[in-house]
Amino acid sequence: MAETYRVGLLGHGTVGAAFEQLLSERAEQIAHVTGVRPEVSGVLTRSRGDFDAILADSDLIVELIGGIEPARDYVLRAMRAGKHVVSANKLLLASHGEELWSTAREHNVQLRFEGAVAGVVPVIRVLQESLAAAHVDRIHGIVNGTTNFILTEMARGGTSYEAALARAQELGYAEADPAGDVSGEDAAAKMAILARLAFSTPVTLDQVIYEGIEHITGEDMAYARDFGLALKLIGTAERVNGGISVRVHPAFLYPGHPLASVNGSFNAVTVESDAITEITLSGPGAGGPQTASAVLGDVISAMIPPASTPETTQSLPVVADVKSAFYLAMEVDDEPGVLAQVAEILGMQGASIKSVVQRGIPAGRARLVMVIHPLLESRFYGAVQLLARMPFVHAEPRAIRVLDEEFTD
Amino acid sequence: MAETYRVGLLGHGTVGAAFEQLLSERAEQIAHVTGVRPEVSGVLTRSRGDFDAILADSDLIVELIGGIEPARDYVLRAMRAGKHVVSANKLLLASHGEELWSTAREHNVQLRFEGAVAGVVPVIRVLQESLAAAHVDRIHGIVNGTTNFILTEMARGGTSYEAALARAQELGYAEADPAGDVSGEDAAAKMAILARLAFSTPVTLDQVIYEGIEHITGEDMAYARDFGLALKLIGTAERVNGGISVRVHPAFLYPGHPLASVNGSFNAVTVESDAITEITLSGPGAGGPQTASAVLGDVISAMIPPASTPETTQSLPVVADVKSAFYLAMEVDDEPGVLAQVAEILGMQGASIKSVVQRGIPAGRARLVMVIHPLLESRFYGAVQLLARMPFVHAEPRAIRVLDEEFTD
Ligand SMILES: NC(=O)c1ccc[n+]([C@@H]2O[C@H](COP(=O)([O-])OP(=O)(O)OC[C@H]3O[C@@H](n4cnc5c(N)ncnc54)[C@H](OP(=O)(O)O)[C@@H]3O)[C@@H](O)[C@H]2O)c1
Ligand SMILES: NC(=O)c1ccc[n+]([C@@H]2O[C@H](COP(=O)([O-])OP(=O)(O)OC[C@H]3O[C@@H](n4cnc5c(N)ncnc54)[C@H](OP(=O)(O)O)[C@@H]3O)[C@@H](O)[C@H]2O)c1
Repeated sequence: MAETYRVGLLGHGTVGAAFEQLLSERAEQIAHVTGVRPEVSGVLTRSRGDFDAILADSDLIVELIGGIEPARDYVLRAMRAGKHVVSANKLLLASHGEELWSTAREHNVQLRFEGAVAGVVPVIRVLQESLAAAHVDRIHGIVNGTTNFILTEMARGGTSYEAALARAQELGYAEADPAGDVSGEDAAAKMAILARLAFSTPVTLDQVIYEGIEHITGEDMAYARDFGLALKLIGTAERVNGGISVRVHPAFLYPGHPLASVNGSFNAVTVESDAITEITLSGPGAGGPQTASAVLGDVISAMIPPASTPETTQSLPVVADVKSAFYLAMEVDDEPGVLAQVAEILGMQGASIKSVVQRGIPAGRARLVMVIHPLLESRFYGAVQLLARMPFVHAEPRAIRVLDEEFTD
Repeated sequence: MAETYRVGLLGHGTVGAAFEQLLSERAEQIAHVTGVRPEVSGVLTRSRGDFDAILADSDLIVELIGGIEPARDYVLRAMRAGKHVVSANKLLLASHGEELWSTAREHNVQLRFEGAVAGVVPVIRVLQESLAAAHVDRIHGIVNGTTNFILTEMARGGTSYEAALARAQELGYAEADPAGDVSGEDAAAKMAILARLAFSTPVTLDQVIYEGIEHITGEDMAYARDFGLALKLIGTAERVNGGISVRVHPAFLYPGHPLASVNGSFNAVTVESDAITEITLSGPGAGGPQTASAVLGDVISAMIPPASTPETTQSLPVVADVKSAFYLAMEVDDEPGVLAQVAEILGMQGASIKSVVQRGIPAGRARLVMVIHPLLESRFYGAVQLLARMPFVHAEPRAIRVLDEEFTD
């Protein structure tokens, strides 16, 4: 039986409840990986729990209350008591970050906050660790899922801002009071944190210039389409003239830009630096389960020694024959009935045709190209062998896999 | 004067030399961040240096020799001597990973290998840390820059495989002997490492089924365009029927797939899991400076305590007025000369028009929409104020930023 690692949980709302559930679902696997079983040792809300009792009974504190006070006080007290802290509180970090980070350094504890910025997109870890000594020139980010969802709706459906916002609220992508998101303030707090980490210079929320999306009209979208542009709420942190600029505003992007194709409630961040050119990270933005997953990643990191590759926990069989969709190209006689025979041979092996193109080529032949729905590769190659032996098939049929359609947007 | 952290460097080829240079360039900044100054304490090649002397004189060993022996022997001896090791050797890890990882656990040292898989794309760190306890369902990756460059050339230019390969060699994206890359073996080694980490089950290179791109023809590309597909060399590691499948082969992707737009020598990896849906990481693939940057990130991580946010090292001014390109929409009188006057007013503020669309709307008016080349925002808004006061301008002009064209592909 593994030892227990006690996690004190402050806040039990959207993220807190999702975190508690995810922790219990993954406890077994975490015990395998870390050798220690994490367990919620106490929960604090406005109506239950006592902070001092929870603190005394925890190895690590997770803060998911939000706002400045009492979150700030609790986080400081936890670190002063020598406990690691994981928080998803962007407002707190963007306003009082220096105080918190210096307290962490002083008391030699970890303060992790991946969940505060871009949901499951691991931009904090990458900035703080992979790029710890890189000279970052610029960060661009879509760091608010609500506004990206609204803008995507407007672009897709030609919908008005109001209608798109209503739809976002209906689907749970926007809160009843969406002001913090649509005004750009939420994104501004996140960009303040990213700028601080990238440039090693103090940046607080009140230094970030921001503009929201409330004034964007369907007409702006329509005219932008004429120019082939995509409209996003973009956060920028960059070096300019020996200083830095940190800002959030709607911006049109050319189609080649890595953020132009980030749609719906997804978040994405690009980091530019000489040595690395540019890396892009993207994934689902905020939301209870996503943020909880980022918080859990932080908790586990605090539990395990760095850069350890745990023992394998299982020995899964390696399967050789899997299902794939295929592209199949053949040179055949250009005669009636050939396509029907090809379809019949494919059908015998369970292969069905999704789409087909036939084109005449010289010497009474035709090039037949088709996409085949997913099936076991062994059966598909069986059909190809049969086809290769047919008198109306010339040269070896050519087969290339097609990644399954389930990924299409 | 900061204390010294001694880095023993094994191998001084493409990556080794780039690493030594990057380390000396970034030493100052690293000393700021970690409190300790890294320094190459010795270099081993076939013609210089002595391994035992370098080992005795180092806090950490960087292995950039490649191949199995003597790299394996050196890495094992370094860890047994209690030294952390950073390696970019995919072949070694894909063949002898379990032996190396268990030695690291046994001797309580770090073995880091970000540079082995996808250049600067931090997929190892994300899998091992952010997603340490996630239940990963599938990984798709473009993990070989050479083949992605060749396929991109073929798709763009309608070039043959041979011509695209020659071009890749000319530009340094492919080696004189490209067999390891174009056969899919390099990608297979990387997928073996990713599968091992994602599924906690032993996977070695010889268990990976791979197929290369040597047989892809320009005709395949042309017909694929008819179906709207992109062709990539895709590595897959996924759970199937209680086992796993790990394979590499060319595959067509639908345009909505996050890997479909990864072009040139870039690498990208998507990780799918219930809790996170899907995250995508992309950036420049292998290459001397890129791999060196990943190796340096690993070295720094071994030097600093986890999750520490170092003190700010500077206090950069926050600049408010920056240059932006703009979209500008106005309702104007539909009369001759209006566009000329608008252009003149913009020109007075240094704003020049990149493109413009004018459309008649009811009541003798026109909608004038343009994109303005980058200029200081203060000057642009100055022009907008002037325009707003003109008798031929009706309603407030609407301005939205456009992200600079320098990002277009
Ligand atoms: N929701 C998201 O998608 C998301 C995404 C990223 C980051 N975050 C961040 O995660 C944090 C939590 O967000 P959330 O959406 O989970 O908030 P929430 O649903 O409003 O939950 C807040 C929780 O904190 C408790 N709480 C509030 N004030 C308290 C106090 N004075 N003392 C003790 N407990 C108190 C509440 O208790 P009661 O139950 O008694 O009211 C509730 O359980 C915030 O910092 C937020 O910015 C959220
Ligand atoms: N090149 C890339 O873009 C790239 C990208 C990702 C990962 N990697 C990995 O990085 C590693 C190094 O690659 P590379 O391209 O830098 O290789 P490289 O240019 O061939 O350099 C290899 C270096 O190792 C030295 N070496 C070889 N055998 C040795 C031995 N028996 N004893 C001592 N030194 C020996 C060589 O010494 P001499 O100078 O005396 O020949 C040379 O300095 C490989 O594992 C490779 O897979 C490379």
